Amino acid sequence: MRAELISVGTELLLGQILNTNTKFLAEELAALGINIYFQTTVGDNKNRLLQTLRIAAARADLIIFTGGLGPTEDDLTKEIVAEFLQLPLEIVPAELEKVKKLFKKSHLIWTDNNAKQAAFIPGSTILKNERGTAPGMAIQKGKKSYIMLPGPPREMMRMYHGYVLPWIKENYPHELQEGLYSLVLKFMGITESGLEILLEDLFHSQKEITLALYAKLGEIHLRITMRASDKEEFKKKTAPVLSEIKQRTTRYLFAQDEETITEAVAQLMLKKKLTISTAESCTGGMLAGQFTSFPGSSELYLGSIVAYDNSVKEKLLGIPLDLLEKHGAVSREVGLAMAERSRVLTGSDLGIGITGIAGPGGGTAEKPVGLVYVALAAKDISNCVEYHFTGDRETNRQRIVRSAQYLIWKYLQNYWPE
Amino acid sequence: MRAELISVGTELLLGQILNTNTKFLAEELAALGINIYFQTTVGDNKNRLLQTLRIAAARADLIIFTGGLGPTEDDLTKEIVAEFLQLPLEIVPAELEKVKKLFKKSHLIWTDNNAKQAAFIPGSTILKNERGTAPGMAIQKGKKSYIMLPGPPREMMRMYHGYVLPWIKENYPHELQEGLYSLVLKFMGITESGLEILLEDLFHSQKEITLALYAKLGEIHLRITMRASDKEEFKKKTAPVLSEIKQRTTRYLFAQDEETITEAVAQLMLKKKLTISTAESCTGGMLAGQFTSFPGSSELYLGSIVAYDNSVKEKLLGIPLDLLEKHGAVSREVGLAMAERSRVLTGSDLGIGITGIAGPGGGTAEKPVGLVYVALAAKDISNCVEYHFTGDRETNRQRIVRSAQYLIWKYLQNYWPE
Repeated sequence: MRAELISVGTELLLGQILNTNTKFLAEELAALGINIYFQTTVGDNKNRLLQTLRIAAARADLIIFTGGLGPTEDDLTKEIVAEFLQLPLEIVPAELEKVKKLFKKSHLIWTDNNAKQAAFIPGSTILKNERGTAPGMAIQKGKKSYIMLPGPPREMMRMYHGYVLPWIKENYPHELQEGLYSLVLKFMGITESGLEILLEDLFHSQKEITLALYAKLGEIHLRITMRASDKEEFKKKTAPVLSEIKQRTTRYLFAQDEETITEAVAQLMLKKKLTISTAESCTGGMLAGQFTSFPGSSELYLGSIVAYDNSVKEKLLGIPLDLLEKHGAVSREVGLAMAERSRVLTGSDLGIGITGIAGPGGGTAEKPVGLVYVALAAKDISNCVEYHFTGDRETNRQRIVRSAQYLIWKYLQNYWPE
Repeated sequence: MRAELISVGTELLLGQILNTNTKFLAEELAALGINIYFQTTVGDNKNRLLQTLRIAAARADLIIFTGGLGPTEDDLTKEIVAEFLQLPLEIVPAELEKVKKLFKKSHLIWTDNNAKQAAFIPGSTILKNERGTAPGMAIQKGKKSYIMLPGPPREMMRMYHGYVLPWIKENYPHELQEGLYSLVLKFMGITESGLEILLEDLFHSQKEITLALYAKLGEIHLRITMRASDKEEFKKKTAPVLSEIKQRTTRYLFAQDEETITEAVAQLMLKKKLTISTAESCTGGMLAGQFTSFPGSSELYLGSIVAYDNSVKEKLLGIPLDLLEKHGAVSREVGLAMAERSRVLTGSDLGIGITGIAGPGGGTAEKPVGLVYVALAAKDISNCVEYHFTGDRETNRQRIVRSAQYLIWKYLQNYWPE
């Protein structure tokens, strides 16, 4: 069974609002096992709306519209569907009463253009709008179905759960296939292409299961998708490939699904009952901000010194002036000293030191923009990694934070130092 | 001139991600006076991508793709466009070198599947990707143009401003019609409805000019839009209403267009040659992160202490233990002491202290979740504001940072203390 989504609204074409309706419906239909191959957005224009409907009806079984159900002249969806199906559109008196009552209740002044919200194709199902004045409509003709929903996301979502989902289930009792389930594995320390090669045979050997990679600010995500009758079947059937992937990627795989690198690190630290503190230069407190982003972070995170200016590095952190002068603020030595001083000053188990040149200025031939040192100090170890980032300032800063978190994760997993 | 947008990516069809690229491009093209009548989303599938391209090419002059430029087998956009145009796709040695260099510079391992990112149609314009490895491509054939952009929004947006916009302007010098221009005024310290009442008559008296309000994480934005032949005409025609709005809202209006509260504060500080430092508890370095987010921030920002744990407040910041015990860490007194100690320890002109309960835990009847103190200490003044936030942890933290920045802005403008 194939569905197609048509969003109607000039404000979408002009980029004035974000199309959240399409994301919502796409996700909901995927869970029912309904395939969507195309999503189209079109304006409040009769000819173009009709053209879009014709193309969609030629390739899909179920067409879902959002938008264009309101009282104004711009609202054309029901008219166009009626014209396309060569069926009339008639005012339903009971619905007209409902709309009028709603106006009275809300102390709004009734104008006659509102009557069109009570017009429907005879034989169609009227979908109640619990959060607005424009009801929706669902109709089957031939082997195809057309569902018209209002544009405001709050109205549309409520209508979907309350009336659309039951309608689809009732009208397609046998056609709904098994639902589409998915999980996401998250990796760092490896490139997208590197991971593809590592898992190449698995990408090709899966029949029911789809594997898809994508990169996301220093992380690589692998989405595993398959149709299943329920979550249990999905888990059972994906278990072998999941286990194989995990075995091959253990040093890079830090989290699954909603879990973030921040949470993965925090979980490990809580398990090991370790505390941490940070001394940051170019990231200016961003790593600290991550460590304090979840409830209960006070159990593992003590504090941080953002030593942006060298005077702060010296006075507050206690980095010896001769070290700063001899090696420069951006150096392995200063990174290590920052990590160690952070640990000592706060009394934490782990200390992180970050120093680097985020850009765009401040680089030299010897120490170019993007050069960053991330150091980790613990009771038993003190080590530093040199990075070279190539993005703009904000990208670099975000990637430095991720890299530092990945380094802590590797350390906590005993994968580092190697 | 008509353009059409094609978003490529199965994750969009499945509703796994929101299509922000389409909104961005639609808004940008509208400003150039380029009409968009259709936006289509299609998956990583050869036949359906080709079908979508055929339909679009039959009705538009300019077709812009986002997504499908990466190194994996799923990435098909360039291949499909080449096939449709019956033109070859060839590796460009100089581009291959660039991609390889980028890998080397980032200390990433090269794999041969990455080479396809350096393949282009001969005669096309290669659009530089400053934030990723996959460049874009623009090509004209017949009277139609095809522009292919990467899917990750940060890469795409930078590429648009840097290379796509100039390409369109160069290739369509006469076709660009009157554009839709807009500017955004940004306010804090007033509600959306408060601002609406303050400007009510202006909302109704404008004919050519559209005014629209929207709320955004503690800020209120007012968008002023009108059609004009160029930026100059727009400026001239909107000047009277702009001046009237500015006059009525001077205490709340902190920035215009792309400028952020961070930049507005930084500009004022640079002008007054003042330096700042921060002592943060519940925001855990997020304010520091803001102050270091722009190039040249070292001129005004010295450093920060993230005193998350009370021991750090005492030992590192030097907050007297009896003050912490008498008033509690979340108190006006401790907030003021944090601001002052931050100033003294770093030697900055201004010191900010933030202490509060971001939630969801940690609240009591006397000190509920959302209670926050933000203090500002300078040579001549030391003052503290009490806030009550009602969002979840992350929303609260972001609003605390904004509120602190707005407080600094008001202080620098001599609007506070009142």
